[in-house]
Amino acid sequence: MSIQLQIEATRGSARAGTLITPHGEVETPVFMPVGTLASVKGVSQDVLEELGVQILLSNTYHLYLRPGIETVRQMGGLHRFMSWDRAMLTDSGGFQVFSLNDLRKVSEEGVAFRSHLDGSPHFLSPEKAMEIQIGLGADIIMAFDECTEYPADAQRARASMELTLRWAERCKKYFEEHKGEVPWGSSQPSALSSQQKQVLRFAQDDNSKGHWKGQTQALFGIVQGGMDAALRRESAGRTIDIGFPGYAIGGLSVGEPRELTRDIVESTLEHLPSDQPRYLMGVGTPEEIAQYAQSGVDMMDCVLPTRAARHGLLFTSEGKVSIKQARYAQDESALDPACDCRVCQRYSRAYLRHLYASNELLAQVLNTVHNLRFYLATMRSVRGWIRAGRGATPPVC
Amino acid sequence: MSIQLQIEATRGSARAGTLITPHGEVETPVFMPVGTLASVKGVSQDVLEELGVQILLSNTYHLYLRPGIETVRQMGGLHRFMSWDRAMLTDSGGFQVFSLNDLRKVSEEGVAFRSHLDGSPHFLSPEKAMEIQIGLGADIIMAFDECTEYPADAQRARASMELTLRWAERCKKYFEEHKGEVPWGSSQPSALSSQQKQVLRFAQDDNSKGHWKGQTQALFGIVQGGMDAALRRESAGRTIDIGFPGYAIGGLSVGEPRELTRDIVESTLEHLPSDQPRYLMGVGTPEEIAQYAQSGVDMMDCVLPTRAARHGLLFTSEGKVSIKQARYAQDESALDPACDCRVCQRYSRAYLRHLYASNELLAQVLNTVHNLRFYLATMRSVRGWIRAGRGATPPVC
Repeated sequence: MSIQLQIEATRGSARAGTLITPHGEVETPVFMPVGTLASVKGVSQDVLEELGVQILLSNTYHLYLRPGIETVRQMGGLHRFMSWDRAMLTDSGGFQVFSLNDLRKVSEEGVAFRSHLDGSPHFLSPEKAMEIQIGLGADIIMAFDECTEYPADAQRARASMELTLRWAERCKKYFEEHKGEVPWGSSQPSALSSQQKQVLRFAQDDNSKGHWKGQTQALFGIVQGGMDAALRRESAGRTIDIGFPGYAIGGLSVGEPRELTRDIVESTLEHLPSDQPRYLMGVGTPEEIAQYAQSGVDMMDCVLPTRAARHGLLFTSEGKVSIKQARYAQDESALDPACDCRVCQRYSRAYLRHLYASNELLAQVLNTVHNLRFYLATMRSVRGWIRAGRGATPPVC
Repeated sequence: MSIQLQIEATRGSARAGTLITPHGEVETPVFMPVGTLASVKGVSQDVLEELGVQILLSNTYHLYLRPGIETVRQMGGLHRFMSWDRAMLTDSGGFQVFSLNDLRKVSEEGVAFRSHLDGSPHFLSPEKAMEIQIGLGADIIMAFDECTEYPADAQRARASMELTLRWAERCKKYFEEHKGEVPWGSSQPSALSSQQKQVLRFAQDDNSKGHWKGQTQALFGIVQGGMDAALRRESAGRTIDIGFPGYAIGGLSVGEPRELTRDIVESTLEHLPSDQPRYLMGVGTPEEIAQYAQSGVDMMDCVLPTRAARHGLLFTSEGKVSIKQARYAQDESALDPACDCRVCQRYSRAYLRHLYASNELLAQVLNTVHNLRFYLATMRSVRGWIRAGRGATPPVC
């Protein structure tokens, strides 16, 4: 038993449901905030819980470099390490390594790359990516794929897709042999106070009662194929033939025009099983996540809300606000009158503008809290729309 | 009616009580966290409230530059600007201008200086410092003084003290004439939602019921005199002659040996009125704040807990922890087993170490939250010790 998607309502192509994971339930469609280095920059875990985050994404490549997999494994996995007892997903490292450009070299075996931190040489293979992600212990882990560059001609897109499929087979083989090594069942270190054990909610009792018994991580496959709908169909079919409990659409938002992204997503979705989760990686703006959720995507992740926040770019129900602008310097109104987050309930645009213009840490924190709330509220609206059935207007942000 | 100190218990030289201000009560002795630019770096106001902070210090010099006094005044003062409805104190800008060294030039009239941000020329006088602080609207404001450099010979220390006394007279004169201009009574802008008005707690109703009627800011005088006990005694006496509702001891922690600081503090305290608040500026370590509270100081402020936090230097009941050290990389225990803050209740040293080593924003936030809690808990212990009377051991950190 790893993960299960219970679809509870449909509306057109859209589905609303509950993704059941070893670390809790996730209402879908869902947007997953990115906590690259086991932290959503500046936002503590209790605030994430308060925002209603049910699943986080962490980056394997970055965690592999810092703090290193052995440290996380010793600590009992990512959940315990960062004190997050809700669901977690890790990517495979494939995209980050793809992004490193000149620092990497791809072979059949895997990818040789150099750390962006200190230039040290490393090697990631399908097996290594599985070993790492098992050690990290996220509920959902991703196959190690090659994110096809854009643009890519037909020959290159096919070759890349075929490599991803061969790697997917190797990922699955390794995972099936080693998934029992996930560190969830590690005994509680005696160094923690009883109060801490309670808070961390991984008490010895739970473990000995077999809290994790029978539960494992879920490995998702990833569809590639560049911008060719036929290749995408083939990739989907052959990935399904290998067999995974969920499927992602990768290799998009790599520079292609938005209309092309949409075409590929919608055509690919037609070839993915309807009774399993469909995860669109690395997307998108508030409008896009609402749109793709309506098209039938169940899960999405993107650095946009968090990264834009740190640049003072805030999403609101009235449009984008670049908070650094002088026009807000004496604006007493809330950032977004329609938003229920702690930031909009308490602070003025003038204050937020001052914080950002003064390079204050709190600007990063508050901006991120708001943007995350906006994204989560957007998805909550979509879920509500799906469940409402006929009559309601689709939420458009 | 501005401020009033109710002394409720004494023990030796120490006093425990309640400082009643227009924006709420403050248990004394108290440590005031520094929120330089209307923000305690990285820590939002709701977290400060949760930590038990009852009074914050903000820096006039920095706010004068960003966002500027007119902005804050237009927003109804600092409390409304930063959405803090508890007590607030501003310094006069004197110390910051003193710290700018070569960029400043002192005359009888005041201090000409250049902004550390862009080199633009500015001028601060006693009158200007009053005008600014009235515009900012803190509950307690400070006289514009000259922080005597260290070391200073007898002649220099006297000249500096005399200047501070002449400036104190000018401060009080200006303040008495203009204190009614404090922007607390500004009408509620219509741009805020009714929910925001509730949250900000400055509803039109409150204003029209005369919430601020009769209440004003309090201007504290500052004792100077360098490291000469006799000069300090004279400065205290002559500042009391001018007459203020509270007195600060300034010009310490400017490079002098700790033992000398202690001597000056203890001798100066003897010359300050026992029925009015005594504020020791810019001090200190956890041991020092406990020590000076026991000597009879009622209020202290220091950047140490917040600044040290941002450098990964954490105060704990077991001593100082430099969290970046490799020894903590796999340390599952809490930062401080005796601490009740959210950080110690939830996160391991390993995670805190990872955050700091990875230059994550959350490191700044969590480290600061813990250090503030440690300081506040230290003062709470001292207050408890004072109120307990004979028998209890003085808290030594």
